[in-house]
Amino acid sequence: MHNKLALIGFGNVARHLARLLVRKQEALKSQYDITFSFTGIATGRHGFAVNPNGLDIQKALELVESGQSISSLSTFQVDNSLAVIQNSQADFMFENSPVNYETGQPAIDHVRTALNKGMHVSTANKGTVVHAFQELSALAKSKNKRYMYESTVLGGTPIFSTFREAMPAAELISFKGIINATTNIILSRMEDGESFDAAVKYCQSVGVAETDPSGDVDGWDASIKVAALATVLMNAPLKPHDVERKGIREITAEMVNQAKAEKKRWKLVASAERVGNQIKGRVAPELVESTSPLFGMMGSSTGLTFRTDVLPDYSVTVSEREGMQGGPEETAYGLFADFVNAVK
Amino acid sequence: MHNKLALIGFGNVARHLARLLVRKQEALKSQYDITFSFTGIATGRHGFAVNPNGLDIQKALELVESGQSISSLSTFQVDNSLAVIQNSQADFMFENSPVNYETGQPAIDHVRTALNKGMHVSTANKGTVVHAFQELSALAKSKNKRYMYESTVLGGTPIFSTFREAMPAAELISFKGIINATTNIILSRMEDGESFDAAVKYCQSVGVAETDPSGDVDGWDASIKVAALATVLMNAPLKPHDVERKGIREITAEMVNQAKAEKKRWKLVASAERVGNQIKGRVAPELVESTSPLFGMMGSSTGLTFRTDVLPDYSVTVSEREGMQGGPEETAYGLFADFVNAVK
Repeated sequence: MHNKLALIGFGNVARHLARLLVRKQEALKSQYDITFSFTGIATGRHGFAVNPNGLDIQKALELVESGQSISSLSTFQVDNSLAVIQNSQADFMFENSPVNYETGQPAIDHVRTALNKGMHVSTANKGTVVHAFQELSALAKSKNKRYMYESTVLGGTPIFSTFREAMPAAELISFKGIINATTNIILSRMEDGESFDAAVKYCQSVGVAETDPSGDVDGWDASIKVAALATVLMNAPLKPHDVERKGIREITAEMVNQAKAEKKRWKLVASAERVGNQIKGRVAPELVESTSPLFGMMGSSTGLTFRTDVLPDYSVTVSEREGMQGGPEETAYGLFADFVNAVK
Repeated sequence: MHNKLALIGFGNVARHLARLLVRKQEALKSQYDITFSFTGIATGRHGFAVNPNGLDIQKALELVESGQSISSLSTFQVDNSLAVIQNSQADFMFENSPVNYETGQPAIDHVRTALNKGMHVSTANKGTVVHAFQELSALAKSKNKRYMYESTVLGGTPIFSTFREAMPAAELISFKGIINATTNIILSRMEDGESFDAAVKYCQSVGVAETDPSGDVDGWDASIKVAALATVLMNAPLKPHDVERKGIREITAEMVNQAKAEKKRWKLVASAERVGNQIKGRVAPELVESTSPLFGMMGSSTGLTFRTDVLPDYSVTVSEREGMQGGPEETAYGLFADFVNAVK
């Protein structure tokens, strides 16, 4: 089946996604009979483009990567993301606008608009899950479309789809793990003798931390992911503010060295568990023993252990390796997988 | 939808499965609109029973567990497994007969017969995958039915379904891990000072090793799992004999102690990788460093790391915990999950 695609947000992740789709074009056709064209692109700083007959994606990538606007590719006069969604005639929208932890906007409006226009949606935007999961899921259902969000936690590594497709009727009792790569890189580098400030600067220089690093180092990013996991997998609509939260600012070089001497490590541990009939979410630094599965997760490696009523403890970890450090490429695959799963 | 179920093999795993289905009866009805009854049971030593209107499963469990035959429950005169399959009018067959590493029989005949009668099939029997995967998959496809085998590797932990449903168009480059629990228990107990023979006896006493332990300790079980994984996930129909194989008999107490002193561990490592246009499978003891993800897998814990073209290294591990050590309960969940995924 042919699918017209709208890309709302055209940053690093969305551009990796576009290249991944092009690279997998033949596999999609032969394995799933899926073909596609790009009919709408909305960027943050390089304009907007719509062409229901198909945009030249290579040209769009070149223009943006050389700092030029894509508006020359457009057959419509459009000047905002909602207009791109409304005029793209797309079957599937990829939502990659910047996350707003407080409100989930404008991503929620993008998703709502696309679902109302009869599109499936996949988003890497955690804000939509923690602020509007129930509304957007219900809306998608009423339109017989899918609202998907695999990339919001552990990059594109399958978590939500594993529970949805591979672990039917399993009851999630608790989960625990490392879900923020930036703080894990910082703590790993501090163990190698770097100062906290230098490690933060390193993360900013390679693009994994923002200019204001507080979303990561104060535990907000991890909290929003805990809330997303609890909302979807435990049917417990936690808000990020409901998650007990402590970041890594109080972890000193001395504490890291002391831990190292004792063959332990400080890790920013995220978890949720059922306490009575409530779900208690928590993000806090923990001193981890060498026997813990979290001990060996260094640098950008992340992972989660799930306790269910049907299996022994089930853990998924994602470890950086040469040529594949995680980040945008991985997130792009999660969006790609959502697309294939929705339309196959 | 109502599903009539045939249980071919009624040992520990199948009895756990029957109890799991009963325990999840309401969840299946409310979440998936699935109902079921048992219409055929074939046991190894306690007879055969068929009743297309539904057998009393509690009664069957009681009879077998008190050493009695189930034939009194039957409305048909049946005296073999194929007759149970043919007369059960089942929609779904669970195949749990003992594994024959050399031929895959009689399991292959059971699966073939069930598919030909228009049933979906789930089997925990690795022999069917390594000796007849292509034939049985093609047969299932031609009948528009499913041939499923989630439980053949890592108990019931989702591996095949994760690749099938959650990682579309991903190319598997290699995998590596610990996939035989018995040898891992033996090596863990040797590290605690137990002799090889005593550790084998322990495994036999708790039912994880056979009277003849060579299937586990000589690496046959791991080899057959490597062959199954390569066959399904890498499109490389390896036979167990194609897998380079070395067991743990040569690992002495001295070697284990020496490794311990160096903060290393001997593990029976199973792997497969693409070398040129061939897939090379291997099972052999390896001296593992404390930084390896395999180092922390002790006792009955098992796990695999997958290298694909789309994600950083992706690992799944299953760790024993209080009240859930893996084994039959876990395997039963894999069969259960196959059932739900096939009929939902």
